[in-house]
Amino acid sequence: MRFTCEKSILQDGISTVQKAVTGKSTMPILNGIVLQTKGNEIILTGSDIDLSIETKVRADILEEGSIVIDAKLFGEIIRKLPNDTIHINTIENNSIEILCQKSRFSLIHMNAEDFPVLPNINENMIFSVSQRILKHMIRGTIFATAQDETRPVLTGVLFEINNKNLNLVALDGYRLALRSEELRSDNTISAVIPGKTLNEVSKILEDDDKNVNITFTPNHILFSLGETKVISRLLEGEFIKYSSIIPTEFNLKVVAKRSELLHCIERASLMAKDSNTNLIKLSIEEDNMVITSNSQLGMVREEMSIILQGQSLQIAFNSKYLIDVLKIMEEEEITMEFSSSVSPCVIKNSDINNCTYLVLPVRLLNN
Amino acid sequence: MRFTCEKSILQDGISTVQKAVTGKSTMPILNGIVLQTKGNEIILTGSDIDLSIETKVRADILEEGSIVIDAKLFGEIIRKLPNDTIHINTIENNSIEILCQKSRFSLIHMNAEDFPVLPNINENMIFSVSQRILKHMIRGTIFATAQDETRPVLTGVLFEINNKNLNLVALDGYRLALRSEELRSDNTISAVIPGKTLNEVSKILEDDDKNVNITFTPNHILFSLGETKVISRLLEGEFIKYSSIIPTEFNLKVVAKRSELLHCIERASLMAKDSNTNLIKLSIEEDNMVITSNSQLGMVREEMSIILQGQSLQIAFNSKYLIDVLKIMEEEEITMEFSSSVSPCVIKNSDINNCTYLVLPVRLLNN
Repeated sequence: MRFTCEKSILQDGISTVQKAVTGKSTMPILNGIVLQTKGNEIILTGSDIDLSIETKVRADILEEGSIVIDAKLFGEIIRKLPNDTIHINTIENNSIEILCQKSRFSLIHMNAEDFPVLPNINENMIFSVSQRILKHMIRGTIFATAQDETRPVLTGVLFEINNKNLNLVALDGYRLALRSEELRSDNTISAVIPGKTLNEVSKILEDDDKNVNITFTPNHILFSLGETKVISRLLEGEFIKYSSIIPTEFNLKVVAKRSELLHCIERASLMAKDSNTNLIKLSIEEDNMVITSNSQLGMVREEMSIILQGQSLQIAFNSKYLIDVLKIMEEEEITMEFSSSVSPCVIKNSDINNCTYLVLPVRLLNN
Repeated sequence: MRFTCEKSILQDGISTVQKAVTGKSTMPILNGIVLQTKGNEIILTGSDIDLSIETKVRADILEEGSIVIDAKLFGEIIRKLPNDTIHINTIENNSIEILCQKSRFSLIHMNAEDFPVLPNINENMIFSVSQRILKHMIRGTIFATAQDETRPVLTGVLFEINNKNLNLVALDGYRLALRSEELRSDNTISAVIPGKTLNEVSKILEDDDKNVNITFTPNHILFSLGETKVISRLLEGEFIKYSSIIPTEFNLKVVAKRSELLHCIERASLMAKDSNTNLIKLSIEEDNMVITSNSQLGMVREEMSIILQGQSLQIAFNSKYLIDVLKIMEEEEITMEFSSSVSPCVIKNSDINNCTYLVLPVRLLNN
C-alpha cells in the first residue's frame, strides 16, 4: 500500500470513522481502523460490531492494499502533523511509514483480513430525509431513552414509518418523546435503533439540507450520507405501543412562553436539588402559574402569566423531566395539556405539530 | 439587613469570593460567604482559612447587618435570576428573602459571628506590580510546583524580592521555573505561597495594566486589587537555595524556534506515551536537532534546523517536562544550554531575560 493525501482530508476521514471505535472492545483489532486504497480513494472503516462507519476520501494511490491501524494513535499522529501532504506506505515488519515534511513515523499495523466483515446491505433506498431534520429529531427524542437495561428495547429509539410520516419515539417509563415529520414514502416500517449508536450518528449528521438516505434490513439500519455510510444493528424485542399511552383528551390546556417557563422551573429546581427528589409543584389558576419548591435550606416561589383554558389544577413533577423537554423544544410558545394531578402532562408546540412530549407527575401524599 | 443591588454586580462579587470556598472544609460555616452591608456597599467574604477573599460591591443599603449564606446555592440562585434589581432582606426563622421580578426565595442563613475572623493585616504597601505581569509570572512558574507533599514547601511558589527584582520560583526535583521582573522596591523579602491558593489568585488577576499591591506579614500575604483583597497563608519551611542549582556555564548552546520545537516534541511524545516513560532522545549535531522516540507500537524521527554553538550532544528527556516549559513560554525564539548528557538543560528566551527554566535529563543505560 502506498498513497499521498492532504493532511486535513485524511484527518476528517479518520475523525468520522473513529466515532465507531469505542476502545472498549475485547477484540484488539476493533481498536483499529481499516485503511483500504483503491482507485483514487482511501476507504476508511471503524467498527465496534454494533456500529460501523465507512467513509471515502480522495488520495493519490500509488499502490493498492489494505491494513488496520490503531485508531487513537494514528488519529493523534495525523492531527499533530503539519498542514501538508502526507505520504504513507507499508514497509517491512508489518509496519507503515508516515512521512510529512521532516517528520517520519513507523507504526506497527494489523492485518485487514482479521477485521470483521461489515453486514452486506442491498441499498434499495427506502427513504430520504434532510440531515438537519433527522439530527434534530434524534436530539429531540434520544434524551428520553431508558438508561438502565431492565427492558433493553427501551434503551433505543423507535423509527416508525407509516401514513407518509416518519416518527421517532423514546420512552423510559417516566416520560415519552415523539417527533414526527412528513415523508414521501408509502412504506410501513418499525425498527428500534440503540441510543448509543444513534448518538454517534447525530454527531455525523450536518446541520444542513443535504439528504441522508436510510435503508433497513431485518437486523440493521444503514444511513448513507454522501461518501459516508453508517450501519447500526437494530435492537430486538417489541417496542411499547406508544400511541395508546398518549392521552387524546384533557381537562385544561395551558399556553406558555417556553423560555420563561424553563427559567422559572430551573430556579425552582435549585431548592429541589437539596432533597434529591427534584420535586416542584405547579399551581395553575386563571391566567397564572405559580411554581413552588422547598427543602431544608428554604423555599422558592415563581410566578408567570399563562393562558388557561379549563379548570384550575395543582400538580407536582420531577423538575428534571420538564427541564429536559423545555430545553430541547425549539418553538417559543408551547401548550401543556392536563387531565388531573395524577395523569400525564402532554407538552406540544403551539404552532407546529411536530412533537409530543409526555411527562408523568409525582403523586403527592395529600393528593 | 436589607438592600437592593443589580444582579450582574452582585453576581460578579459572589463569583470572586467563591474562589476561596472549596466546599471541602470540615467547618460547615466555611461553605458559606459573608454578606455585610455597610454605608453604600456590600462586603462579601469567602474563606477556607488558607485562602480568604473579600470584595466590595455598590448597593443601596436600607438596613445594615451581616449574615453568612451557603455560597453554592446563593451563587446559583443569583446567577439564574433575571438581569434586574434584586432585593434581599433578613426575615424571621434565620432566613433571608430574595426578590427579583416575580421570583421569591427564602433561604436559611448562618450567623456572621460564627465566621472565622480574617487575619488583620496592616496595609503598608510593600510593592506594586501590574496585574498582567503577575498573572503571567504565576502561570509561568506554578506548573513546576511539587504535586506530592513529601516536602510541603515545594508545593508552593517562592516570592523573592531582592536587588530591585521580583523573582517567582517553583521546583519539584525534576525541573525548576524562574520568572523575574524589575521592581521599584529596596526591600528584601522571601516567602513561599501555596500553589493551590496562588492558582485562585491568578484567576482573579486581570490581563491588564492595573496594579496589584502586595503586603507581607510573617504568616500571610495580602494581594489588594481595587475593591478586592486576597489573603493567603504562607508555607513554613526553608525553600531550596535555587540559585546554586542553576548552572552558569555550558558547553553547547542551541537557538531554536519555540513552536516548531514544541510541535516536534509533541509528535515524538505520541510514541513515547505507550511505554509511560515519555522518553524522547535529542541528537544535536551541527545545525540540526533530531528527536526520536520508540515503543512497541513503532518509532518516530523528527528533525529541525537550529543554530548550534559548541560541540554535539545526545541527551534524553521526559517529554512532558519540555512540553510544559515550551507551552508556557511566550517569545518565539529560545535558547537551550547544555553541559553533558547527564546535566540539566537550561531554557531561556533569546531576547528578553525574564525567565529561566531548568529540566533534568533522563540518564540512559548506555550513557
